[in-house]
Amino acid sequence: MYELGVVYRHVERTDRAVADALAAPGSATVHEAMGRVGLLKPCMRPIYAGAQVSGTAVTVLLHPGDNWMMHVAAEQIQPGDIVVAGLTSECSDGYFGDLLATSFKARGARALVIDAGVRDVGTLAQMQFPVWSKAISSKGCIKATLGSVNVPVVCAGALVHPGDVIVADDDGVVCVPRAIAARTLEAARKREANEAAKREQLASGVLGLDMYRMREPLAAAGLRYID
Amino acid sequence: MYELGVVYRHVERTDRAVADALAAPGSATVHEAMGRVGLLKPCMRPIYAGAQVSGTAVTVLLHPGDNWMMHVAAEQIQPGDIVVAGLTSECSDGYFGDLLATSFKARGARALVIDAGVRDVGTLAQMQFPVWSKAISSKGCIKATLGSVNVPVVCAGALVHPGDVIVADDDGVVCVPRAIAARTLEAARKREANEAAKREQLASGVLGLDMYRMREPLAAAGLRYID
Amino acid sequence: MYELGVVYRHVERTDRAVADALAAPGSATVHEAMGRVGLLKPCMRPIYAGAQVSGTAVTVLLHPGDNWMMHVAAEQIQPGDIVVAGLTSECSDGYFGDLLATSFKARGARALVIDAGVRDVGTLAQMQFPVWSKAISSKGCIKATLGSVNVPVVCAGALVHPGDVIVADDDGVVCVPRAIAARTLEAARKREANEAAKREQLASGVLGLDMYRMREPLAAAGLRYID
Amino acid sequence: MYELGVVYRHVERTDRAVADALAAPGSATVHEAMGRVGLLKPCMRPIYAGAQVSGTAVTVLLHPGDNWMMHVAAEQIQPGDIVVAGLTSECSDGYFGDLLATSFKARGARALVIDAGVRDVGTLAQMQFPVWSKAISSKGCIKATLGSVNVPVVCAGALVHPGDVIVADDDGVVCVPRAIAARTLEAARKREANEAAKREQLASGVLGLDMYRMREPLAAAGLRYID
Amino acid sequence: MYELGVVYRHVERTDRAVADALAAPGSATVHEAMGRVGLLKPCMRPIYAGAQVSGTAVTVLLHPGDNWMMHVAAEQIQPGDIVVAGLTSECSDGYFGDLLATSFKARGARALVIDAGVRDVGTLAQMQFPVWSKAISSKGCIKATLGSVNVPVVCAGALVHPGDVIVADDDGVVCVPRAIAARTLEAARKREANEAAKREQLASGVLGLDMYRMREPLAAAGLRYID
Amino acid sequence: MYELGVVYRHVERTDRAVADALAAPGSATVHEAMGRVGLLKPCMRPIYAGAQVSGTAVTVLLHPGDNWMMHVAAEQIQPGDIVVAGLTSECSDGYFGDLLATSFKARGARALVIDAGVRDVGTLAQMQFPVWSKAISSKGCIKATLGSVNVPVVCAGALVHPGDVIVADDDGVVCVPRAIAARTLEAARKREANEAAKREQLASGVLGLDMYRMREPLAAAGLRYID
Repeated sequence: MYELGVVYRHVERTDRAVADALAAPGSATVHEAMGRVGLLKPCMRPIYAGAQVSGTAVTVLLHPGDNWMMHVAAEQIQPGDIVVAGLTSECSDGYFGDLLATSFKARGARALVIDAGVRDVGTLAQMQFPVWSKAISSKGCIKATLGSVNVPVVCAGALVHPGDVIVADDDGVVCVPRAIAARTLEAARKREANEAAKREQLASGVLGLDMYRMREPLAAAGLRYID
Repeated sequence: MYELGVVYRHVERTDRAVADALAAPGSATVHEAMGRVGLLKPCMRPIYAGAQVSGTAVTVLLHPGDNWMMHVAAEQIQPGDIVVAGLTSECSDGYFGDLLATSFKARGARALVIDAGVRDVGTLAQMQFPVWSKAISSKGCIKATLGSVNVPVVCAGALVHPGDVIVADDDGVVCVPRAIAARTLEAARKREANEAAKREQLASGVLGLDMYRMREPLAAAGLRYID
Repeated sequence: MYELGVVYRHVERTDRAVADALAAPGSATVHEAMGRVGLLKPCMRPIYAGAQVSGTAVTVLLHPGDNWMMHVAAEQIQPGDIVVAGLTSECSDGYFGDLLATSFKARGARALVIDAGVRDVGTLAQMQFPVWSKAISSKGCIKATLGSVNVPVVCAGALVHPGDVIVADDDGVVCVPRAIAARTLEAARKREANEAAKREQLASGVLGLDMYRMREPLAAAGLRYID
Repeated sequence: MYELGVVYRHVERTDRAVADALAAPGSATVHEAMGRVGLLKPCMRPIYAGAQVSGTAVTVLLHPGDNWMMHVAAEQIQPGDIVVAGLTSECSDGYFGDLLATSFKARGARALVIDAGVRDVGTLAQMQFPVWSKAISSKGCIKATLGSVNVPVVCAGALVHPGDVIVADDDGVVCVPRAIAARTLEAARKREANEAAKREQLASGVLGLDMYRMREPLAAAGLRYID
Repeated sequence: MYELGVVYRHVERTDRAVADALAAPGSATVHEAMGRVGLLKPCMRPIYAGAQVSGTAVTVLLHPGDNWMMHVAAEQIQPGDIVVAGLTSECSDGYFGDLLATSFKARGARALVIDAGVRDVGTLAQMQFPVWSKAISSKGCIKATLGSVNVPVVCAGALVHPGDVIVADDDGVVCVPRAIAARTLEAARKREANEAAKREQLASGVLGLDMYRMREPLAAAGLRYID
Repeated sequence: MYELGVVYRHVERTDRAVADALAAPGSATVHEAMGRVGLLKPCMRPIYAGAQVSGTAVTVLLHPGDNWMMHVAAEQIQPGDIVVAGLTSECSDGYFGDLLATSFKARGARALVIDAGVRDVGTLAQMQFPVWSKAISSKGCIKATLGSVNVPVVCAGALVHPGDVIVADDDGVVCVPRAIAARTLEAARKREANEAAKREQLASGVLGLDMYRMREPLAAAGLRYID
């Protein structure tokens, strides 16, 4: 957050297998598995529906209206990375379009998560390069001021360190810190295993009130039924 | 709005045939037929395009970050109902996902209208269980505080009583009070009948200025044409 | 902006060929070609994805909750026009639906750009009549107060004169003043020509840092790499 | 909410002594005493600091940009009333200025609570006529469309019936339904009585953890201290 | 709006006496006198209460995060001017602080109106240099990109030409075009003259219903009274 | 951000003299001295004007609608601290009122910075206990869910570690990391020293264009003057 004009070349990335496996459970299950922390604000929306990805974060800190550092970030991308861009103050300009997407993709990036705007969204959808952003805007950027690459950034209210795992889908974006990625994956899988059985029961008409044994605590809390 | 910890088991639902028939004219026509009242704020958006439903309201009052009462509400659902959830203060958390949707659907619910967030939107779209919400969020909820079920609630700025008719489509969500539902249906159908003829005229190039005889009142109001 | 109750019948429209040709490069490229001015705020979103249009502006100034002047504007539409509606204060009501769209289309309009709400969006998508708006709302309007037609208007933060070119697609909406339309088209085409070669290079793995020769200015600005 | 063009002359007002007495505890204590319901959204702010009032609600339902019904409402004001204005759709126009305030004050109104804008705020402050609103705007209104007076309205997300008690101060605005006003006053006073003793303890350095005996439940919930 | 990198040295300012005299009636009356157009959005708020000014506009077009052109604008200020700053895209950074205010004041500027943020607001209040802005922010700006001075700008949704009159007070900010400034002043004064008599009547308890003779049109519109 | 249910008792606080001295230059100068990073979003506003403080951060992570951890945080306060509260998702409820302020003050806290709402703002102003928040709300909180104390938190978009320095005044709130606090203080003082001389020059009518020698770079960038 605080260093400007710096590019960290070395990133301790989360174990590839763990990072890749977190895509399957998806952002909602992973977020629950972490204890309901690490979520980016829900203003972050995918530019097209249906993408579901995970990857290791390469971070970039940008100034309003200036996308110079996106080009610097491109060089730091390794296959399996997701670029995460935070801003020093709010801006909805279009920091990223089909040219940068072509470059990011060529480097092996899986997605972009940016607390600002993007453009060329039709082409990006055709390229199947998913982006989660808070705006779509035709407005381009200047290249005048230094930010940083691979420093910790705040993106849409969440702290992201380089190498953390990003999980993104139609429900939103979650950041899983490297230190707890493996344990989060395990917890997420356990939740998923449980959910199949629950879904079946609920589909058969069993109520959550009974399945989760909520009637007693509800009564204890004072819930009254009136006919 | 004011009673907490209460579940009303008995709801005087609008006549089923009337409630069902209000889906066809859709929210815009129904809203006009009511005299342009009863609309939920336009921040309420469908999680997927193309759903068009009507049904009788089962209401639930929720606290921020707490979806306990959704499970209580599930038991009160009857086939043809739409669950309408209001909040005691603003929150964008994901109160509802595929498990609750499975349960609601098994009980016969047609849709959810919630002044908060939902998640698992990809799965909900596959299940064809429509939701109108103001946010999509991976963030789950706790189960700690009592709200109420089937009390009058304010949802996205509109007052909804249990048993009122909810009409929801791509244009938004309208609440039709039980007492005026039949008369509103009639008025909506009259509007629709008129619209077909108007559409034909307009398509042929006749201007609204002439079809609605607006030229005289516009001139009376002082409209000036300058060449 | 300042004249009320006035309809200018004569509009000096941008040359048709120029106006039509600006659709192809699209709003992002055109916006860059103009020097990054003339963009409507990114809250202006298309009601369906994939439309890409350009046309000459017929403008209309509206009051909150009142769409009377839309009918007056219809008469001033010529084939190839795009109607641009500004408001005297913010409003999200549904000023435009399938009947007005039928009329506008019959007159030759290609699209509507409105700093307010629209409705019947499902039908509009079927009709393939694109609209860019800041809201979707079932709420209809009254017909009580005079605005103006073909005066300069501010729409979503951008100044639009009658006869200017509007370029709109999934990335947003740009207004190109008549006086610079031809030169902007030329500049946009030059950009496009350049972009193909750049895209190829970037796809092959060449970095923007090298292609745009950014390494030197970045170093001059003080960028430091840390291993 | 649903009746337009109607003025109810008769309002069952909350007992005057109860309505008046609810000002002293203020909106935060009253809101707690009600069980944390009935609050208008926090976007409702006073136009000047320091006003603290309570009174019985006279309600008015308005359309965007149209303040005709404010004049109709004026006639229904009785001394000790607070006018509460809801809108059929969002609008920030200035519905109320020093002339209407002069009229309202002459009728005995104590304040205005409006889910829209007001103007002449400097003069209103000099007159000591407090207003809680979501906007301040110079923009005046037309007088063209009927709303209603003394029907239930939704104002800033809260349901208000005519005759309910409104409590408003620097912390916000709460609506206390007539049926529970006396009991809410009693509960609010009890809270106040308790608070004095608590304040003294806390000021002396006693921790809430000890005063409220929170250490045990926190430990039970799993709280861990790390040195 | 469209020219970048240009400073117009010559501005046709509104007659000084007219420009100065428009402060007294204030923004609300002037806005009514113009027919309810020309208002900047109500998000524009004064940094301290009680300032009431008018003056001739010197305009400046700025990029997000870049206040270079504010220094260029300073040189174009003449005594009695108000600087009006529009942006090419939304930004809340602090473009203006006590140093620039010292410079503007030394040049004879009366105020700043900016569709962005300002800082040093405590010092500005002590200096009695009023600012209307949409944000207060400590964040400073870079000096890297050319905008323009004394071109037409859109500021908070309103079109402002250099030399137009700006009227600003606690109710907001209005732009009066040079061509209609004298006539607007006259109309504003007429309104003020009328208001004194009206205020007296309303204070004596006469209702607006009677004073404005609204009972008949209300009845004609269908208003019903219910006891 | 990621640990829940944990209280770190030991905080490495910034040197007291440095932390205290950062109040004088204020948030804008400190923010510039840091290179324009570390600012909390401008939605964070003081509940009363004129407070200017600095102190060492005690952090607390809260859930929506739940202020249990505020009581836990109170015990960790040392004289000279400022409590900084982040949330796991957006909420405007009133987490803090005069009782908690009494407790915090008794422990030696200088202020609260909270990415949510507060209440009892009138009493807090009388107590001269300053708060920077994004909302004022009468709505109280439950005590049901564990957050954490003295973990890194994101507050209004800025990362804050326990022990960092918080600088807050009418312009906003800045977080200065412990590691760079001394050097930032020095840089801030240098800026202040420079500003006095600049202010004098500007007050005498010297233009920033000349004082900062901007004419040449502006001309080089292509600025054109037109008479």
